Formats: sequence, C-alpha cells, structure tokens
Amino acid sequence: MNIAIVGTSGAVGQELLRVLEQRNFPVDELQLFGSSRSAGTSYNFKGKQIVVKELQHNDDFKVIDIAFVSAGGGTSLEFAKTITKHGAIMIDNSSAFRMDDEVPLVVPEINGEDALNRPKGIVANPNCTTSQLVIALKAIEDITHIKKVHVATYQAASGAGAAAMQELEEQHRQIVNGVKPTVSKFAYQLAYNLIPQVDVFTDNGYTKEEMKMYHETRKIMHSNIEVSATCVRVPVMRAHSEAIWIETERPLSLEEAREAFRNADGVELIDNPSEKEYPMPLGLEGTDPVYVGRIRKDLTNEHGLTFWTVSDQIRKGAALNAVQIAEYIIKNS
Amino acid sequence: MNIAIVGTSGAVGQELLRVLEQRNFPVDELQLFGSSRSAGTSYNFKGKQIVVKELQHNDDFKVIDIAFVSAGGGTSLEFAKTITKHGAIMIDNSSAFRMDDEVPLVVPEINGEDALNRPKGIVANPNCTTSQLVIALKAIEDITHIKKVHVATYQAASGAGAAAMQELEEQHRQIVNGVKPTVSKFAYQLAYNLIPQVDVFTDNGYTKEEMKMYHETRKIMHSNIEVSATCVRVPVMRAHSEAIWIETERPLSLEEAREAFRNADGVELIDNPSEKEYPMPLGLEGTDPVYVGRIRKDLTNEHGLTFWTVSDQIRKGAALNAVQIAEYIIKNS
Repeated sequence: MNIAIVGTSGAVGQELLRVLEQRNFPVDELQLFGSSRSAGTSYNFKGKQIVVKELQHNDDFKVIDIAFVSAGGGTSLEFAKTITKHGAIMIDNSSAFRMDDEVPLVVPEINGEDALNRPKGIVANPNCTTSQLVIALKAIEDITHIKKVHVATYQAASGAGAAAMQELEEQHRQIVNGVKPTVSKFAYQLAYNLIPQVDVFTDNGYTKEEMKMYHETRKIMHSNIEVSATCVRVPVMRAHSEAIWIETERPLSLEEAREAFRNADGVELIDNPSEKEYPMPLGLEGTDPVYVGRIRKDLTNEHGLTFWTVSDQIRKGAALNAVQIAEYIIKNS
Repeated sequence: MNIAIVGTSGAVGQELLRVLEQRNFPVDELQLFGSSRSAGTSYNFKGKQIVVKELQHNDDFKVIDIAFVSAGGGTSLEFAKTITKHGAIMIDNSSAFRMDDEVPLVVPEINGEDALNRPKGIVANPNCTTSQLVIALKAIEDITHIKKVHVATYQAASGAGAAAMQELEEQHRQIVNGVKPTVSKFAYQLAYNLIPQVDVFTDNGYTKEEMKMYHETRKIMHSNIEVSATCVRVPVMRAHSEAIWIETERPLSLEEAREAFRNADGVELIDNPSEKEYPMPLGLEGTDPVYVGRIRKDLTNEHGLTFWTVSDQIRKGAALNAVQIAEYIIKNS
C-alpha cells in the first residue's frame, strides 16, 4: 500500500509513524505531508529518512492508497477533495466529517464494517474521549443494552497537541524555578489546576467535546444511548481517564460485567482493589488497550454499574484507531 | 471562650489558627495541643506566640469550652473522654464519630440545630468531599427533593495532609531536575498522575471515602438520598473539585437552579461559559465558598441536572466548617 500521513509533525502524526512501524503495516511507500512550516523536515520510518512535503492542491495523492489525515478540521475540509479525488481513502482524525451522514465514524472493534461504505472516500476517526468510552461500553452492550451514560473525564494535555504537552512541562519547570508560568496553549494555567472546559461551548451549556461524546457514541454504536458528559483537562501528560456510570436494560452482576470486560476486544481489566490495582494514566502511556477497573454496582440504581477507564489518548484515542481502520479495510476489501 | 486546638501542626490545625483569627472568633484563651513530636513548637495567634503542649490523659481540658480536634481518628477515639469529661465541646474533624448515632454530624448551613443535641459532648465535622457536595445539594433540595446523586471527585493533595502537599511539590521538583520522584504519602506517584483510590476499600468495591459521601450526605441532609461516588486524587494542591449529576423529584429549569445556587448560603456561582468563567481549583485556595458552575440539564434525564463544584479542602472541607459549628453553638446556646 502507498500510504500518506498529513500532519506528520503533530503528536498524532508522530505516533502514526510509530504505530505503522510497530504493527508492521504493509507499507510500500510512505509519503509525509505538512504545512509549509513543517515541509523539509525529515522523519525516520523503518530506518529510512523521509522528507515532509508541503500539502498543496495538486496531484500528489494520485499514487496514494490510504491517507491518514491529522492536521486539524480546517485542513481536512480544505484538502478532502484533493486527497480523495484519485481514489485514495482518507482516514480523518479531525472532527470535520464525523457527523456527516456520508462519512462512516469507525472504531473497528465495534463497527468496522461501516468503514466499507464510504461515499466520500472518507472514514472518520472518533474523538479520543469517545473511542475510550465506546470500547468499554461495547463490552457491556454485547450482553445487555445500555440506555444511559454519565461520564466525567480527566483529560491529559496531549489532547491539545504536542505543544500543549510541552507547555505543561514548561509550567512545572517555571514553578520549580520560581518563575511565573507561561499560559498559551490552554486558556488557563494547567499545572496544579483543572480546567473544566475542553473545546468551545455550545448553546445547551455543554462544550463541543462533551457533545461529541453524545453524538459520536450514538453513531458508532448504532444506538439511541444517551450520554451526559463533563469534560475536564487535568495536569497529566497523555492518557485520558473517565469515571463512567451506565444504566442497562437488564441488571448485571459484577461478575457478569467483569467477564464481559475480560473478553472484550481492546479492553484490559485491571481491577484488584485489595492489591491497589486499578488503571492509572502514569505508566500506561504508549500502550494500546482501554484499561477498565474499579467496577462496582451503582448505589443509586439496581440497573446501574460504575467503572473507571484509562487509555492512551494518542494511541487508541487517535493514531492506533486510525491504523486499525486501515487494517480493517485492507482485510475486508 | 477558652479554645483548644488538638493537632495544631497539621494542615487543618494551621488553618484553624488562621480561620479563628480571620473570623475574629471570641477567644479568651487559646491552648494548642499535639503529639510529643510537635510539643514545644510555638505558633503565632493574634500576635502572641503559643507553645504546643503534649496531648495527655490529664485534666488539661478542664478549663476548655471548645476543642477543635484534628489529629486523626485514632487520637480522637483515644482522647474523646479526656477532652470532654469536664464539659468541653469536642468538634472532631476525624471520621471516628461521624456515623455514631449519639454524635451529630453538622454543616451549619444545613443542619446547624443538630449541633445543639450532643449526648457525648462531641460534634463531628464531615469529610471534605461531603461538605462541598451537601452545600451545593442543599440549594436544590430547598426547592425540590433530590433522589439520586452521581459524583466524580478530583481531590487535591491537601486531603492527605501537609506532608502530602509537600510530596507533590517535591515530586515535581525532582522530575524537573531529572531525579526519580519519591513516593511515600500516596500509594503511587501523584505528579502527572491520577490515583482512583482515596482511603481503603470496603466490601462493595467502593472506597471508604466514596462510602462517606453516601452515608454522611444522608445523615447531614436527614434524607434518603442515594449517592454513588468515584473518588480520585489529582495533582492539585488544596481545592477539591466535583462533577455532579442529580435527579430531582420535580424537573428544574436551568434558571431555577441558577437562582437556587445564587441564593444559597455558602455557595458562590461562577457560571459564565461565554467568558470562560467557571470554578477552577487554582486561585480559589484559601477562600470560603463552595463555587458552583457548568450548570446544565442532564442529557439522559428530564429530571436531571449536572454541575461542577470547587471548594478549598482545608477551609470548608475542614477548618472553616468546624469553626462555623462552634459559632453556631455559641450563638444558639
């Protein structure tokens, strides 16, 4: 396959390089694209240096089979036609096309087959908080329908990109050195703080990030499930965590729920309270699973369960899921 | 009033000194007590240095009217009789007596009158996560009954004491200097991490901290309200945050809810999304209110609301509430 990465210099672009190499993805040729600022930089892939080309409205994508695009919604909208016009499949990490009826929104463990019907040549990758949520929900949905979800997120700096991660580190360096922390990538200082706003606000008082969890979950799961989310940025580097409550059609025992998580694709159970074993963001960075733990009955609802998930935001939340979509398409085409 | 502080050197003891002075509490004489390790240290109160005496089983409390006790559950249990036997009122910050039927558990804005009936001479101060929660709930309970609560906490280091706060700072210093962080006060590194365990686990998989939110809320509110909590330690210094969903008997409009919070004792509303105004722990340390923001309808429930609270863990979560209990008793005795 001839593969392109658009937005190579970003946190997700860099992880795409790693994931493609680690999974031994069938790459014949890899082309890297970026802004005029990134053009000329080179990156190593399987021992070869590849120079980033400037993304332009030309025929560069004629030879490409699959393009992983992660350069923001504006770039995706502007370049979708250029990328897909000769038949390349665009796997888009931005929010630009996620709710487009003609664009499937895919988490392969859940609705991989949706990726095979793509009228615009585009498959959308869900928002990081959604991928993590739906992977855990799917385990339960397979044994009984989930009607409602309440979820509070604890989102790492990485969701705002590589520069935001650097800003968090820099803020801690400045604080240790007695210097006033620089605030640029987030609306407020993130070090020693929590910011209960991710993305902009919508009319109902929820942020776009929170509404993504509502709409994307329904689209991916083909379900009328209802999700009320509170999304919060926390001073953690790159794994997101979520405290989740679900209401199911049939009441579940803890043992049934544990068994469901244990058997689910993409899930790893870490739930051994007596040994203080539960998922934590530190130490799980760079790994693939959605980790689930702290499983217990919802004390307010016979039909309710609650649990805690952690997953690397750049992997399952972005680059890994995108590559898994491509793998699904290759295998099933 | 002759006042004693037991556990003066701790984070709460130090805050008690500040709160008593700031509120101009009617202190005739202040005596400070502590462990043998703390004895001999002196602290300033209204310009006078007061030396910490060792807490012992003797008649030191004979002259005391009110003793603020914050030296852990073990000390409270061991010294309750010594402290109260001559009639001193013990306002206890530990969990030792909170669920004792003969000990009122009090948040003055809610059930101050309970503090007037204290068969054991003890009034218990709730856990920090509970005080913050019930102050917000009371605003709504006054207009319609709350049946259910889901709450995810984001708890600061201060809840584990002054040494834990120092450990978090030290971990960041070590990381900046390329040194492996020291882990001693928490089970795991807290810098750049989240620990989804506060206090020990109980049989139902919830932690004691989470079950405190269930039981203490019911006792304080004299209500059959049900609370399912997930308590998480976050790398923040001293204000706790909570993402809260409530189900009410009567559906509420956002405007009704806002008005209720605006008028509630102990609450300050910060809820102006268009200006990015919402409560955040950084910058609210050392202040008294429970801040409420991000108010919106629960997307899964016509009878549901969700909001976000922040409050200083050492003030309303501990020292301030204890002093308010004493003020209530003085005013109503």
